[in-house]
Amino acid sequence: MAKYTIGLDYGTLSGRALIVNAETGEELASSVYDYPHAVMDEYLPSGKKLGNDWALQHPQDYLDVIYNTIPDVLKKSGVDKEDVIGMGIDFTACTILPVTEDGTPLCFLDEYKDEPHAYVKLWKHHAAQKHANKINEIAEERNEQWLKNYGGKISSEWAIPKLWQILEEKPEIYDRMDSFVEAVDWVVRMLTGKDVRNSCTAGYKEMWNKTTSFPSKDFFKALDPRLENVIEEKINKSLPITPSGTYAAGLSKEMADKLGLCEGMAVAAGIIDAHVFVPAVGISKAGQMLAIMGTSTCHMLLGEEEVQVDGICGVVADGIMPGFYGYEAGQACVGDHFQWFIENCLPKSYYDEAEKEGVNIHKFLRSKAEKQRAGEHGLIALDWWNGNRSILVDVDLTGMILGMTLQTKPEDIYRALIEATAFGTRMIIEDFRKFGVDVNEFFAAGGISQKDPMTMQIYADIIKMPIKIAGSEQGGALGSAIFGAVAAGKEKGGYDDAYTASEVMGKVKDTVYYPNEEESKVYDKLFEEYKILHDYFGTGANDVMKRLKEIKK
Amino acid sequence: MAKYTIGLDYGTLSGRALIVNAETGEELASSVYDYPHAVMDEYLPSGKKLGNDWALQHPQDYLDVIYNTIPDVLKKSGVDKEDVIGMGIDFTACTILPVTEDGTPLCFLDEYKDEPHAYVKLWKHHAAQKHANKINEIAEERNEQWLKNYGGKISSEWAIPKLWQILEEKPEIYDRMDSFVEAVDWVVRMLTGKDVRNSCTAGYKEMWNKTTSFPSKDFFKALDPRLENVIEEKINKSLPITPSGTYAAGLSKEMADKLGLCEGMAVAAGIIDAHVFVPAVGISKAGQMLAIMGTSTCHMLLGEEEVQVDGICGVVADGIMPGFYGYEAGQACVGDHFQWFIENCLPKSYYDEAEKEGVNIHKFLRSKAEKQRAGEHGLIALDWWNGNRSILVDVDLTGMILGMTLQTKPEDIYRALIEATAFGTRMIIEDFRKFGVDVNEFFAAGGISQKDPMTMQIYADIIKMPIKIAGSEQGGALGSAIFGAVAAGKEKGGYDDAYTASEVMGKVKDTVYYPNEEESKVYDKLFEEYKILHDYFGTGANDVMKRLKEIKK
Repeated sequence: MAKYTIGLDYGTLSGRALIVNAETGEELASSVYDYPHAVMDEYLPSGKKLGNDWALQHPQDYLDVIYNTIPDVLKKSGVDKEDVIGMGIDFTACTILPVTEDGTPLCFLDEYKDEPHAYVKLWKHHAAQKHANKINEIAEERNEQWLKNYGGKISSEWAIPKLWQILEEKPEIYDRMDSFVEAVDWVVRMLTGKDVRNSCTAGYKEMWNKTTSFPSKDFFKALDPRLENVIEEKINKSLPITPSGTYAAGLSKEMADKLGLCEGMAVAAGIIDAHVFVPAVGISKAGQMLAIMGTSTCHMLLGEEEVQVDGICGVVADGIMPGFYGYEAGQACVGDHFQWFIENCLPKSYYDEAEKEGVNIHKFLRSKAEKQRAGEHGLIALDWWNGNRSILVDVDLTGMILGMTLQTKPEDIYRALIEATAFGTRMIIEDFRKFGVDVNEFFAAGGISQKDPMTMQIYADIIKMPIKIAGSEQGGALGSAIFGAVAAGKEKGGYDDAYTASEVMGKVKDTVYYPNEEESKVYDKLFEEYKILHDYFGTGANDVMKRLKEIKK
Repeated sequence: MAKYTIGLDYGTLSGRALIVNAETGEELASSVYDYPHAVMDEYLPSGKKLGNDWALQHPQDYLDVIYNTIPDVLKKSGVDKEDVIGMGIDFTACTILPVTEDGTPLCFLDEYKDEPHAYVKLWKHHAAQKHANKINEIAEERNEQWLKNYGGKISSEWAIPKLWQILEEKPEIYDRMDSFVEAVDWVVRMLTGKDVRNSCTAGYKEMWNKTTSFPSKDFFKALDPRLENVIEEKINKSLPITPSGTYAAGLSKEMADKLGLCEGMAVAAGIIDAHVFVPAVGISKAGQMLAIMGTSTCHMLLGEEEVQVDGICGVVADGIMPGFYGYEAGQACVGDHFQWFIENCLPKSYYDEAEKEGVNIHKFLRSKAEKQRAGEHGLIALDWWNGNRSILVDVDLTGMILGMTLQTKPEDIYRALIEATAFGTRMIIEDFRKFGVDVNEFFAAGGISQKDPMTMQIYADIIKMPIKIAGSEQGGALGSAIFGAVAAGKEKGGYDDAYTASEVMGKVKDTVYYPNEEESKVYDKLFEEYKILHDYFGTGANDVMKRLKEIKK
């Protein structure tokens, strides 16, 4: 009798459920629910105005995802509830909310409905930048060793900057909250009644390390005396940290009845929405890198040892797959980059011509760019339109493009921008290798990997590795379903370990992009140029980008 | 009784006559004649295919300009032929043709109608680049002192490269020609019957120097033994060099009858079409710089001494105004640059919006860019889309732009490109000053100066000098008319010296662009950044632009 698992995938604007055959990985049915409150970046529902760089969400939306999508996939698939053996959940992160002792979000309380700090702070809430800067400054002064696990810098998107912002701007909310909890852990608690902390968000967003635990009280005291005991008081009341994708707890009776599932069904500890793509493509070994390519790119890599690599986003034990060190790196501007170009630089004549030919503008542009050989356009760019996440970790860097002549065409610039992001990926790969972390296989997921063969071929030619493409278009939800099968265990019809589950249920497409040797030779030369410019503008030889930002202010 | 002079202005696609009151500078009537053969860059009239980078013209067109426009302005103005006292002629250069002993163009001979090398080589005939490279190489090896008068490099547009090309590719034409003559001198000969060489083209295009004459026979022999006596044999049969804008000869009877003018009327020695703008704006002193801003920019400057300035186009005694050393520098890409941007980078949405508002796209874009303060867009560019003419003299340099973020708008880039050309102008000014050549007043002529107040204000803020604008929209023809008055002399109702003529007949507009001190302060900072990048990419620290061109090949 076939068994099934559900993957719950929480994105920035909607949540999705997917029901999957645990023996084959076959995807039976999915259901999407758009958050009614979407992203609140200007006003609260009450009409209260928010500050610059704020981005909030409403936790009721997360519950409504569950209530709407799970019954829907059960109905669509016709699967019997007895055959649903587990569920996994992934979420954007650090998306985090203040809750009471019983897990009630503070924004559910009448007295805080009008208080912005009582709501969920979405990952892209960037109003705590000055707190992040202070944390980095003090951590560096104190030579805090944990900082090196994060490439030497933490982001304003993480938990402690966000929490410190609350403490400074609204101490009442800070005092009132029992804990400040990642949305993914909160959803697990809503499903199971059990308060669990997953290793992925703890490691990548709360500065936890499996060996050395959290940063010291002394450090937090140095930030602000009121933060001395912030970990025990707000972040983690000595709860054990559960490896992401392993069993967290059983589904509560109340939730089981509401959703039409069985009480006690296995629920996995949560994971970040990017990281969960790793099992979805069948990755199960050290040295396999996955790039999730959308508006920005996340790089995930499994390793067998903990190495402090300069300029990466983080290394976390059990952070991606239980039993491995999970490495994360990133590029801040990929799809966004190409979109910027199309919106701001693509001339009318191209739209007119595309219309005449009856093709969409992206396709039209690619049809012009894809005919080119490496180096043909004579351009080179630095892909820093949104700063550099890895390996320079510097938001104040900006874009550069060089080599234009009066003969330069829009498709030349477009292609140069694509190549720039591929050179950025190669910098990351070479950085890992320099620090002794293997990268010997490359997978790609996300929109660009599915829709843009030209870009994928350029990447293969530039990184000089074959690129395998995620086989599922709902990779996040599939990854969560895989972890649901691991949480259920072999005895129930699932798996006892994540690697087997991933190998069986994860998928790549038949299409593999192989490097073209001739193109790679030319790109090797261009990459040398990229590196020279990368170091010149990125590592202090000429800080013109920063000075221009200063002048701009 | 008022006296009048005629200015004949030969451009790339048409010739113009203008009749001017010599007492007041008032412009009475003008007439334009488009060259029927325009620029022949693909085929001869016979259908014969031309090579890459060729650009020819037909000398019959130049005669037809005279026959059509002069009677026309006489008719339109109603001026009596007795009151027309002189004529000046300016021409594109080096626009040059092979002629027989009596001045007949070889292409007029039946046997050469189908021979490309028998036609006029237009200034932008670029097929002699390898000859120019060889000349520069050998001149540098031999440490030829004259080379420094041209900023260390001569251009493929000049006479000797063009002539050497003929010798190599079609020695028969080389042998058959009696001389290789600038079109402007040929027109003077057609008008007067007298063979005259003007100091302007001789100095800027034929490597003549008032003190040291032409380069030595040894040098020419080093190029090619057949060129040993090239000057005496083809360029200048020991004719005296007549200062441009002074009396050359009187109008021949035949021409006078044909045109409706008086025999013996004074005709001035010719001058280059850019240089003739100098008297047209009333320049009469050392230290006054004129920028003629069109697709590219020419900078003209008068000096009292001959100084060898690095990276300029040339310094020539009597080259611009008799009695002064005329300095020329240039920027290869100005209006072309902005046009490239509009054609290749301006998005459809801007066209749509401009159309909705009912304004043309240039105005629309400027309306967005002109609101900005210095430094507001956070960008900086190097204006080398068409190489760098001064002060780096390097056609292999290419464009660069830096500072882009996802918030960068088209108007930001547009403005940065304009600023880049103004920084380029400031580099030229500072280069002159570094070598001790004064620049203390600034005039602008050409299309941009007339139509684009935003750009002119940016220039004033960046160069930190007030900018006076040419008062005539036909400045070339006016300048030639002024020289016509000088050639006629005071006794006939003209002037005995060019400075007085220029002060009386030359004009600037009432509008002067004064630097804004606040803006200038910010631009000083940005100019420092420009200089750093200029030197880094332009003087060998990082030759990436050249390497990209190599890879492109």
